[in-house]
Amino acid sequence: EALAKLLELKAQLGTNDGKQTFVLKTPKGTRDYNPKQMAIREKVFSTIINCFKRHGAETIDTPVFELKETLTGKYGEDSKLIYDLKDQGGELLSLRYDLTVPFARYLAMNKITNIKRYHIAKVYRRDNPAMTRGRYREFYQCDFDIAGQYDPMIPDAECLKIVHEIFSELQLGDFVIKVNDRRVLDGMFEVCGVPADKFRTICSAVDKMDKMPWEEVKNEMVAEKGLSPETADKIGEYVQLSGATELADKLLQDDKLSQSKVALEGLADMKQLFEYLTFLGVEDKVVFDLSLARGLDYYTGVIYEAVLVQNQADTQMQQNEHCEPVGVGSVAAGGRYDGLVGMFDPKNRKVPCVGVSIGIERIFSIMEQRMEASEKKIRTTETQVLVATAQKKLLEERMKLVAELWKHGIKAEITYKKNPKLLNQLQYCEETGIPLVAIIGEQELQDGVVKLRVVSTREEVDVARVNLIEEIKKRSCQS
Amino acid sequence: EALAKLLELKAQLGTNDGKQTFVLKTPKGTRDYNPKQMAIREKVFSTIINCFKRHGAETIDTPVFELKETLTGKYGEDSKLIYDLKDQGGELLSLRYDLTVPFARYLAMNKITNIKRYHIAKVYRRDNPAMTRGRYREFYQCDFDIAGQYDPMIPDAECLKIVHEIFSELQLGDFVIKVNDRRVLDGMFEVCGVPADKFRTICSAVDKMDKMPWEEVKNEMVAEKGLSPETADKIGEYVQLSGATELADKLLQDDKLSQSKVALEGLADMKQLFEYLTFLGVEDKVVFDLSLARGLDYYTGVIYEAVLVQNQADTQMQQNEHCEPVGVGSVAAGGRYDGLVGMFDPKNRKVPCVGVSIGIERIFSIMEQRMEASEKKIRTTETQVLVATAQKKLLEERMKLVAELWKHGIKAEITYKKNPKLLNQLQYCEETGIPLVAIIGEQELQDGVVKLRVVSTREEVDVARVNLIEEIKKRSCQS
Repeated sequence: EALAKLLELKAQLGTNDGKQTFVLKTPKGTRDYNPKQMAIREKVFSTIINCFKRHGAETIDTPVFELKETLTGKYGEDSKLIYDLKDQGGELLSLRYDLTVPFARYLAMNKITNIKRYHIAKVYRRDNPAMTRGRYREFYQCDFDIAGQYDPMIPDAECLKIVHEIFSELQLGDFVIKVNDRRVLDGMFEVCGVPADKFRTICSAVDKMDKMPWEEVKNEMVAEKGLSPETADKIGEYVQLSGATELADKLLQDDKLSQSKVALEGLADMKQLFEYLTFLGVEDKVVFDLSLARGLDYYTGVIYEAVLVQNQADTQMQQNEHCEPVGVGSVAAGGRYDGLVGMFDPKNRKVPCVGVSIGIERIFSIMEQRMEASEKKIRTTETQVLVATAQKKLLEERMKLVAELWKHGIKAEITYKKNPKLLNQLQYCEETGIPLVAIIGEQELQDGVVKLRVVSTREEVDVARVNLIEEIKKRSCQS
Repeated sequence: EALAKLLELKAQLGTNDGKQTFVLKTPKGTRDYNPKQMAIREKVFSTIINCFKRHGAETIDTPVFELKETLTGKYGEDSKLIYDLKDQGGELLSLRYDLTVPFARYLAMNKITNIKRYHIAKVYRRDNPAMTRGRYREFYQCDFDIAGQYDPMIPDAECLKIVHEIFSELQLGDFVIKVNDRRVLDGMFEVCGVPADKFRTICSAVDKMDKMPWEEVKNEMVAEKGLSPETADKIGEYVQLSGATELADKLLQDDKLSQSKVALEGLADMKQLFEYLTFLGVEDKVVFDLSLARGLDYYTGVIYEAVLVQNQADTQMQQNEHCEPVGVGSVAAGGRYDGLVGMFDPKNRKVPCVGVSIGIERIFSIMEQRMEASEKKIRTTETQVLVATAQKKLLEERMKLVAELWKHGIKAEITYKKNPKLLNQLQYCEETGIPLVAIIGEQELQDGVVKLRVVSTREEVDVARVNLIEEIKKRSCQS
């Protein structure tokens, strides 16, 4: 971050001595993606999209902005982070804050009661950016949601299965999926003596337990939010519990908690969820954690969050490399929101929904750091062959040959010089990783052949022009 | 459009009798994409991206908004269409108006002097939308650009080759690519007696010749922009010329035009361009058209625009279907802009650029109309097999089997009911186009088999459980 600030200052200074007065930068909290970063991004996307498709999801898209009122009253304390557009006459608009509210608006508007869809798009939050840790103001979300009236916990279990599959495939190291249920939290607040109108704000306080010690959270509850120290302490006992299905059993027997009807419902569903997770083979990474609360208002049932578990080896490696360690934080989160669609429906018809959102930027940060550390070269193009020449005045022949290759679906290039040097053409291949060069000269044209050179081995063979396409395709398959 | 207005009114009325006061719609000039529309969109994108990759392009991405000052002074009369963000403290931001200016900013900021890149992303214009004709306020651009100091017209010719390849592959009907050169236009204005400070505004007038008759354009030049009628008439003679390389030859001999140095440069390059287009095999669709002017300020050399040529048969079909005909308009446009990067560089270092932008929304409109007319069913998921049962209490077995299929990369689903009816499960396959059903019951479990049913033929065979993955893969390849 210090570096980023210096670069920013430098950019400002750099423009003052020219005729221009503007700063050459992207807006605060945003970034460009260069071709290498795009190659990483596309790899991550393809893993995620393949998983979503494997689970039978369709995809939709919505505009980057919504009517301001569509977003109003959905995000609780976070609403202040919404970007508004300037009033230039016409409707008042805001940039989307997540993909869940636009999805609910889409369902209500089109009266859809059943859908399994994914949506990958950028969302916008006027938050304090921490870009080295993958926290941006413009960032991607990859959302998978199941809407429809189904039997309890079956779609919920599939969402967790998807998180498990994606983070197993991405190989970012070990991970844990914490689960909890808003009904268990509400029941807990109830039996601990929290007034009903403080449930959501106390929920927000509990949500901070992964970032600050319990004493500070307690202080927020007592000093800022007006709980009695005794009530806070009771909550404190519960939220330090974590386990699996046996914890649900224990809590079902809990003298206090079993007094709450909603808590019992939540706990019964939690037991059911763990059973399904066992059938799906993913119970190993899932932890029932009473301190998980999630910030957003709209959740009504099960909630979850995946975190990467940084192991000792990784941390050491990063320190040795003198790079700031990538913060270990939430990389996926979601839950059940059965009331949100109804908020958009004139007749308040409910469409139960459950979903998960994969946070891509932190994954990118980790993969980028790894890629840099490994010094492995990433190709940013897919060009199979460069059409080249060692002689002058052969642009016409190069153009005709490259057009022939394009026509047959071969990825090919020529350099944009009339009379390029062979050395420069070969260098271009080395730099960009093009594996083959198709060299033509007067002799080759006369003989009806093309000299095919393998860049890595410098081996050259004459290939009859009629066989060239086939030969390139064959060699591209092998590599 | 009338329909859209009615729907909007209805939506407004619909919310007034409920407890809500908000309108359930997307912002003016924007749309959602439903799963079918997404399937079409992804098909179009894949054709375009494949072409860009075939030509060796890398890809980049930039934020959806830029500093307001980055966009200032780049778009001439169109600047009024830029969306600004509200000042919420911090930087003043605007949504990007195209991908070209962010690209130039990216090059200058990163001091890049050579790159061939594509960028596919949404851009924003507060224009008057005409959505049935594919004119939106939020729309995709698919840009391909070549930056670098190269020999004249070689990258320019490749851009036209790309347009030719894409519109040939998309099979939207016949098309024409009009080309002209800003230097020819400027030379023409010069020799016709247009004052130099009126070149750009007269250029904007010429740009309207495809939308209004010459008399109206002339009137704008004379009455609004202060040209003498004689000067306008001289321009009128030139801008009605069109042809190919022989027109360039003719104009090189033109008594008046040959007095202009810039015109001669432009005409010589035009001849060169046509020669290269012949080598690349795409001269057949390219027309040198002196009335092509392009609205944007930043072009400095060759400019072009692709238009679809609507044939009689298409028009009739559309009328029979009672749908508004899709407007025949520009579907791709671009040109050379050698000065834009320099505008961002503190030392005004120039990076010559040439590029093309494919306009996707009009293509979507046409393909959507066609798809509706053909009544061909489009699948919106890729699910290969539904794991189903005819008996109760087999959710555990269904979950275990579907997890096994996912593990081996098979795209599979179960329905989210504890005890679903077989008929409902088969119906789900019919509706969503899932070709296979893997049916399990007590008997199958005992025998270690799965009943594999082909939805289309209703044929059923027992497959040993150990062979199931292989069998599904085999059948998916065949279909």
